[in-house]
Amino acid sequence: MVKFGIMCAMEDSVKREYFELLGFESVGADPTKLRDCVACAMWWRKWLEGTGFSVQLRMPDVKDGAASPPIVLAERAGDESKSVVLVYGHYDVQPVDPVAEWKTKPFEPAEIDGRVYCRGAQDDKGQSFAFLCGLRDCIERGIAVPTVKVVLEGQEESGSAALTELAPTLRRELSAQILAVCDTSAAEGLRPAIVAGLRGVSHFTIRLTGPNRDLHSGEYGGIAPNPAQAIAELVASLHNPDGSIAVAGFRNGIEPPTHDERQAAESTAPDESAVREDIGCDPVGGQMGKTIVERNSFEPTIEVNGIHSGYGGVGAKTVIPSEAIAKISMRLVPGQSVRGAFKSVVDHLEDRIPRGMKLSVEDYNPGAGGFRLPLDSPVFRLAADILREMDGRGAVFQWDGASIPVVSVLREVSAAAPLIVGWGQSADRIHSPNESYSFEQFARAREWSKRLFSSL
Amino acid sequence: MVKFGIMCAMEDSVKREYFELLGFESVGADPTKLRDCVACAMWWRKWLEGTGFSVQLRMPDVKDGAASPPIVLAERAGDESKSVVLVYGHYDVQPVDPVAEWKTKPFEPAEIDGRVYCRGAQDDKGQSFAFLCGLRDCIERGIAVPTVKVVLEGQEESGSAALTELAPTLRRELSAQILAVCDTSAAEGLRPAIVAGLRGVSHFTIRLTGPNRDLHSGEYGGIAPNPAQAIAELVASLHNPDGSIAVAGFRNGIEPPTHDERQAAESTAPDESAVREDIGCDPVGGQMGKTIVERNSFEPTIEVNGIHSGYGGVGAKTVIPSEAIAKISMRLVPGQSVRGAFKSVVDHLEDRIPRGMKLSVEDYNPGAGGFRLPLDSPVFRLAADILREMDGRGAVFQWDGASIPVVSVLREVSAAAPLIVGWGQSADRIHSPNESYSFEQFARAREWSKRLFSSL
Repeated sequence: MVKFGIMCAMEDSVKREYFELLGFESVGADPTKLRDCVACAMWWRKWLEGTGFSVQLRMPDVKDGAASPPIVLAERAGDESKSVVLVYGHYDVQPVDPVAEWKTKPFEPAEIDGRVYCRGAQDDKGQSFAFLCGLRDCIERGIAVPTVKVVLEGQEESGSAALTELAPTLRRELSAQILAVCDTSAAEGLRPAIVAGLRGVSHFTIRLTGPNRDLHSGEYGGIAPNPAQAIAELVASLHNPDGSIAVAGFRNGIEPPTHDERQAAESTAPDESAVREDIGCDPVGGQMGKTIVERNSFEPTIEVNGIHSGYGGVGAKTVIPSEAIAKISMRLVPGQSVRGAFKSVVDHLEDRIPRGMKLSVEDYNPGAGGFRLPLDSPVFRLAADILREMDGRGAVFQWDGASIPVVSVLREVSAAAPLIVGWGQSADRIHSPNESYSFEQFARAREWSKRLFSSL
Repeated sequence: MVKFGIMCAMEDSVKREYFELLGFESVGADPTKLRDCVACAMWWRKWLEGTGFSVQLRMPDVKDGAASPPIVLAERAGDESKSVVLVYGHYDVQPVDPVAEWKTKPFEPAEIDGRVYCRGAQDDKGQSFAFLCGLRDCIERGIAVPTVKVVLEGQEESGSAALTELAPTLRRELSAQILAVCDTSAAEGLRPAIVAGLRGVSHFTIRLTGPNRDLHSGEYGGIAPNPAQAIAELVASLHNPDGSIAVAGFRNGIEPPTHDERQAAESTAPDESAVREDIGCDPVGGQMGKTIVERNSFEPTIEVNGIHSGYGGVGAKTVIPSEAIAKISMRLVPGQSVRGAFKSVVDHLEDRIPRGMKLSVEDYNPGAGGFRLPLDSPVFRLAADILREMDGRGAVFQWDGASIPVVSVLREVSAAAPLIVGWGQSADRIHSPNESYSFEQFARAREWSKRLFSSL
């Protein structure tokens, strides 16, 4: 299968490596999976050493009694006349629940119709491996490549706490001119896309505690306050009926996009009916009256990632639950201060603590703010040229609604210009059951890398 | 230990029987526990046959592919000059989650400081067994007892569907003058209490379906509507800020209590600080401005027994969930129609379906309405006399906030006068982890039964 001049076939040796990498149950957010994360990091060490890198694994300090997954740091000296490239990726993956919805085993790669189904097949094991394969292709063919530094972490999906803390101590080790990241999506139809901006992300858990135990809803109904009802009221208060955010001060400082940015973004706006088909419901998230592109690229969100209280099993259990939690994440745009946005939400919640309840805000992960990059930088011009050679349609600029918070951190520490080009598609169902990545996507990510390292 | 002239010691043979009964994992709501329910019903058959009853187990029809726990029907001919007594109890118990909060194994009775800890130790295995032990005491001592009919079911905690359906076909088998039930609580300090009214109960599940899968909250935030946020908004809409119910038509037909009922109820009102101590938070459930007694005995409720959507585990998973559920129960008071109240809630919800969501209302269990009994009936006068002999403080009348919906059904079918006297205390923590029942409570339930059957 050849499309746009890219070979999609994958050598058996590469496929074997890819499938090995996917087999590790490296759910970085789950402390019980620490051994799997360590094993995955050790796999990467061996692979990078085999490609000529000197590698060290950093086991971040034990915190709150729990060790963090190792950070893989690697460097391979190259052509000193070229720009130093820092490659960032992550080997941790999202949890796999709901497990029952997987059609194949979540950590056993299954090849079906040109796609590989497995947690991490794309995000970010697949994409980062494909990208580093492209670099190895250059090295194996004797093409002069720049000095390359690699940093792979195991906590991206849960906030990159360890790397965020470690990075400022590694200014020398991480310094580079280009920060290359392959952890995003191409435009529709696999048209190349350069990420010109990312939203920030920050998350936390709110907990309401009421009665000291689950109570009989008859014996105590009308007496005891109900945390399940209360958390619903508290969460409902975060948004206005038109879908806008109801938290005072949350939007402070937002820098609206420029005319050029807005125009470039709207020019690649997805077709609303295609989005409806993709997500299976009306795309009516966010504030009414704004376009999909505005709502996803240039507006912040407050999302409830989970809400849990009381009984949820088979049949009925007529209780007044003793507590309730909601897991909240915020997507932030340039100009918003992470701490400021968080504080505004906490203030909002504390002003509205339901009667009889205690509120606690837990597991705050500050993450990072959003950023936008200038469209006319030299590295963007180079990338655009390479991508036009690969695909006559040329690349589009994207302001992704998603976040790679650690990119903000690495950008600051390394002083490098982010070059974020990925080959995901919504069909890959990352973060959902049945995640997958096609051999064609893998081949394009690898080819992009090969051409980039050859051209620098 | 002797209190109020009641022996609390339990013979080894009775304790062995009690602990056997508690060992069955008869969670009637859980289809995977059907075998345990059948085993428990067979245990009861053997016990009742040993006490001179003729017994049949009725296995209700298989519905929706799932069999219901058996109904135990028993009869023992007695003195024909006396009133026929129908004894109702249930051998099913509440689910045991959260299991981690149990200090002993939920289905292994543990004797600690004069109490038996086990799921069902009180509700209703302990209470119904103690009551039937009192009857056996009479029989063993040669005391003339009336004809006694027994009906024990395995679905009380999940709505008594099978017995509700079967009962109208058993008018002859169930006909009686007195319907004796031992499944309620005594007043504070174990002062005897006669239940003069019960609230009804009815429950159902609401489900909101949005995206066709859990979505990445960055990629889709601002695009996809969020069912976790939406269910919070929907649930929040059920109540007004003052805690009153916001559903139009829900209160239609409510018959307010009489002056005597209200006065008798308020005279036994619990001390607010004791309630606070018991439940561990301010007793601010229900509508502001009404007394605890009003709110618990004479007012209906809509309670959220559970709300679940998205991620709730360790760390973070930044998703927009694909669906959300809330488990809702209503406690109903005399005059409210069950169907009418349910319809008013469904209408309320359907008028407010959040943008982009599909609403379904599932697992509706109509349960039964509430009732209140006349305070000056002959059976209440007899019971009051017996209870004053047992305890110089005499009995109080109670209008319990809880429900035994099947009592409404059995009352109608049997044409009997309900006599509902139980010996629970809030310390028993029924429906919660670490449920227990004291030997003293057991002894009093048994003594009450013995004196009742001797006096009829």
